[in-house]
Amino acid sequence: MTDRIWTAALLVIGDEILSGRTQDRNVAQLATWLNVQGIRLSEVRVVADREDAIVEAVNTLRARNDYLFTTGGIGPTHDDITVDSIAAALGVPVVVHPRARAILEAYYETRGGLTDARLRMARVPQGGELIENRMSGAPGIHIANIFVMAGVPHIAAAMLDSLTGTMEGGRPVVSGTLGCWVGESEVAGMLGEVERAHDGVAIGSYPFFREGRTGANFVVRATDPAVVDACLADLTDRLRTAGHDPVAGGI
Amino acid sequence: MTDRIWTAALLVIGDEILSGRTQDRNVAQLATWLNVQGIRLSEVRVVADREDAIVEAVNTLRARNDYLFTTGGIGPTHDDITVDSIAAALGVPVVVHPRARAILEAYYETRGGLTDARLRMARVPQGGELIENRMSGAPGIHIANIFVMAGVPHIAAAMLDSLTGTMEGGRPVVSGTLGCWVGESEVAGMLGEVERAHDGVAIGSYPFFREGRTGANFVVRATDPAVVDACLADLTDRLRTAGHDPVAGGI
Repeated sequence: MTDRIWTAALLVIGDEILSGRTQDRNVAQLATWLNVQGIRLSEVRVVADREDAIVEAVNTLRARNDYLFTTGGIGPTHDDITVDSIAAALGVPVVVHPRARAILEAYYETRGGLTDARLRMARVPQGGELIENRMSGAPGIHIANIFVMAGVPHIAAAMLDSLTGTMEGGRPVVSGTLGCWVGESEVAGMLGEVERAHDGVAIGSYPFFREGRTGANFVVRATDPAVVDACLADLTDRLRTAGHDPVAGGI
Repeated sequence: MTDRIWTAALLVIGDEILSGRTQDRNVAQLATWLNVQGIRLSEVRVVADREDAIVEAVNTLRARNDYLFTTGGIGPTHDDITVDSIAAALGVPVVVHPRARAILEAYYETRGGLTDARLRMARVPQGGELIENRMSGAPGIHIANIFVMAGVPHIAAAMLDSLTGTMEGGRPVVSGTLGCWVGESEVAGMLGEVERAHDGVAIGSYPFFREGRTGANFVVRATDPAVVDACLADLTDRLRTAGHDPVAGGI
């Protein structure tokens, strides 16, 4: 059986990442969440707060992936241009979403009221639906195959929570890890042979240097848990035969 | 005086970032280093260990930026395909660089000798020069406007060290920060006005929620320190006039 592979791309929108001011957390967070949904993160782009850059990336990435996620640029300030840029990419106008407006009115009722700036956060590309979140008043947006999320990681996490289980995916990728106190260059040939011997498996090699010693973790990934187990067993045998002492689960 | 703006892109190559296994550190590290060189990080892409994806990204990014940096995929194992992919993008063959071979021979003399797998790390696209580093035997590569670096952040840092001061750039972007215990949506209009009133300035707004209170840091960026100072003074005045209490340097 050949599974259909579902893919997603992530577009990170924000000068704060490109200036080095903010360390991105959304790539790893989204990747981990997607794995559980059976969707593979195939590529990521980070662009500045510039409409032309956002439009180009949105149109490229949404066309060649099942899903496109964006993070950042949906707040109330002048540099928050994600909604307008996605509307431009889709060729639709921006409208105020009635339910988003109601959510914001309720949220700001005891917080100084709904100003023009705050009302910006109720704007969606025409046809967009809301991704509600329990952390803040401002919702994310779902339109076509695009999911527009906040840049602040814990708000993005709350939006992912509300999407959990709602998206079609394939079989989740499962993985298993072997650690070994060996330089990866000593076993590079072996890793390639083992990967080729097991269909549908990808082996990643992650070297490290700790306590004055060289080691590596080898991560075996596939959609079939039995294939992962067989590959790990094979790699364990070969490492032992070569005089090494692999550690199940990694070091 | 209008400065020429020098730009760089970063291509992060690696399944480990896209799987969520590894938290990227190279984007923030490179961005910070580039700022000091007077070069702006204009875009970042993260692609899988697949030659077609790497070739496409390399050719797009190198054409529209002064510089292209890559991280990842230059180790000794089967999944390290960066050198071959960049050679393919440039249409040149891969050759063993004599000096890289000599460096690796010396490095591995007391570490089991130079095997075929290790010799992979001496391969460069024809015409490539080495970026030496004090942390490991394997050098990075400079070819055309491309700088090929390790994925491990402290080795990438050592490669950047050896490039410091060697690259042509413009005036560094300088920045100043004001913090304020205010919801950014309350001052969104003001921020836009202040940005428009000062040529060459970009103001970023970074909200936070701490100790049960809402606040934001406003980061003013420009190449001229006097412009940054004037803009910060203006923003300070307007925040005070509106009844807020800005904190120089940020909160």
